[in-house]
Amino acid sequence: MKPAAAQKRIEGVLAPVVTPFRADLAPDADRFVRHCRWLMKSGCAGLAVFGTNSEANSMSVEEKLELLDALLKGGVPAAALMPGTGHCALSDSVKMTREAVRLGCGGVLMLPPFYYKGVADEGLFRSFAEVIERVGDERLRLYLYHIPPVSNVPITLELIERLLARYPGIVAGVKDSSGEWPNTRAMLERFKDRGFDVFAGSEVFLLDNMRAGGKGCITATGNVNPGAIDKVFRNWRSGDADKLQAGISATRKIVQKVPMIPALKAIVAHFGNDAAWQTVRPPLVELTPEQDRQVISELKAAGFSMPGL
Amino acid sequence: MKPAAAQKRIEGVLAPVVTPFRADLAPDADRFVRHCRWLMKSGCAGLAVFGTNSEANSMSVEEKLELLDALLKGGVPAAALMPGTGHCALSDSVKMTREAVRLGCGGVLMLPPFYYKGVADEGLFRSFAEVIERVGDERLRLYLYHIPPVSNVPITLELIERLLARYPGIVAGVKDSSGEWPNTRAMLERFKDRGFDVFAGSEVFLLDNMRAGGKGCITATGNVNPGAIDKVFRNWRSGDADKLQAGISATRKIVQKVPMIPALKAIVAHFGNDAAWQTVRPPLVELTPEQDRQVISELKAAGFSMPGL
Repeated sequence: MKPAAAQKRIEGVLAPVVTPFRADLAPDADRFVRHCRWLMKSGCAGLAVFGTNSEANSMSVEEKLELLDALLKGGVPAAALMPGTGHCALSDSVKMTREAVRLGCGGVLMLPPFYYKGVADEGLFRSFAEVIERVGDERLRLYLYHIPPVSNVPITLELIERLLARYPGIVAGVKDSSGEWPNTRAMLERFKDRGFDVFAGSEVFLLDNMRAGGKGCITATGNVNPGAIDKVFRNWRSGDADKLQAGISATRKIVQKVPMIPALKAIVAHFGNDAAWQTVRPPLVELTPEQDRQVISELKAAGFSMPGL
Repeated sequence: MKPAAAQKRIEGVLAPVVTPFRADLAPDADRFVRHCRWLMKSGCAGLAVFGTNSEANSMSVEEKLELLDALLKGGVPAAALMPGTGHCALSDSVKMTREAVRLGCGGVLMLPPFYYKGVADEGLFRSFAEVIERVGDERLRLYLYHIPPVSNVPITLELIERLLARYPGIVAGVKDSSGEWPNTRAMLERFKDRGFDVFAGSEVFLLDNMRAGGKGCITATGNVNPGAIDKVFRNWRSGDADKLQAGISATRKIVQKVPMIPALKAIVAHFGNDAAWQTVRPPLVELTPEQDRQVISELKAAGFSMPGL
């Protein structure tokens, strides 16, 4: 294996970047790079491209690798990237993870294979282990992606224990999108002092996560509200942290009244004055005009803006 | 669009063919072709390669296309093939469906995109419609794959209604793996006289399905018990149909006491005297020695055999 550099781990706010599509549903690399650059200058410490909110599973490996290439050519530093590389197919996960490491990405965020349900931890352990062994590179920083409401395949504490014992340093952390704070807390209590970085899957838990030893959050609304969320991250020890947290939680609450992914795209479309952003790939559908009006007007009423977009 | 030939639709027993893997987990084309040829001469009217029981979602599009190519070179007629071509990624589904049609496959069995849960029928309609439009070939025979216990994304009667109204002749039928006979019956009552062929997802419902106007079954245990299941299909109007049905249901009951996919592989390994068949890809795990002994000894006690394997 290629030896690991003493690389700094990603900490802070990461956006699972929404993916723009052209009218013919092809990925739109130009708009993607532009949005990623805006996120990096607006509060994001890193970009979890190809996540759930990116409609990543609606794209082929080739389409994602082309976007990754465009991003690096567009000047986004590889060390700030934590692309999603977990697929149902072992071969796809290996291919994409290998490429991410080769390009110098700061980490990868890996879904378990999610077609078969009720599989044993042994099978999931083998899945992650096969990817790690086949990539065979000590530079790999693998973050586990626990999102049972969507994947329906949970990553248990026992599975983390086994992976961390076998691959310390490579198994680097988790994004917990269970939406259950007791689960995040349990991960922190058991693993945070063993080189395992816990990211909340929503900024709603950011302050709790920081106070309990976490490293930040990877959150959908990081796509539209990165500055305010980053402010909580940077000021979590300060006296007004609770107030700042209440502000970002309130914004999130507005956004998640309507379907999240088309909502994020509608918000980028509106505040960036670029209607093309509304396009989603099937099986998702764009917001209805009524939903669109609702989320935009409530955000405006709350004083929301996207400076510099 | 290329005009449709007056091709005969597949009817009867289809096996979702188990996929052999080498020790390094690469698909084993030689063993695959051999098993497919055995199935075709042992009772199967067709082969639903790349289904759930094929561990198809654990393979990349490229790996599956290579197996398909090997199968055709191995002399299995394309008209008997109904490969699974549905993926999470629209681009993958289009690529694989296009290739299946180009090769002359009798049909394709298509999962809905299954990562996002709770999506609207509108989004699923658009998913199937995009694939049909992009393939753009009247020879396409698309069978919908309803398997909510695994995909967690159901294909509703309303969705079938919309697709059938928009793409009559192309939307050709369904495999109902809901395990709920009332659902299969509802599909039959509503669609069977509109060029929509209903296949039961298990031979347990084969006789019921034939009596209600269905066209056969696509069943896991078709991999190991095709002759007896085909006998029910061919004799469903006869006086001993119920007795024949009881026999195949009893065999199924033995097999499904243990995890189905590794069980099928263990049975092929045992009765074909070829231990390499036991290998599964993660996230699945092979049977324990005890489970293996149990299923084999119970099958033997019931007089089960795989003649000519």
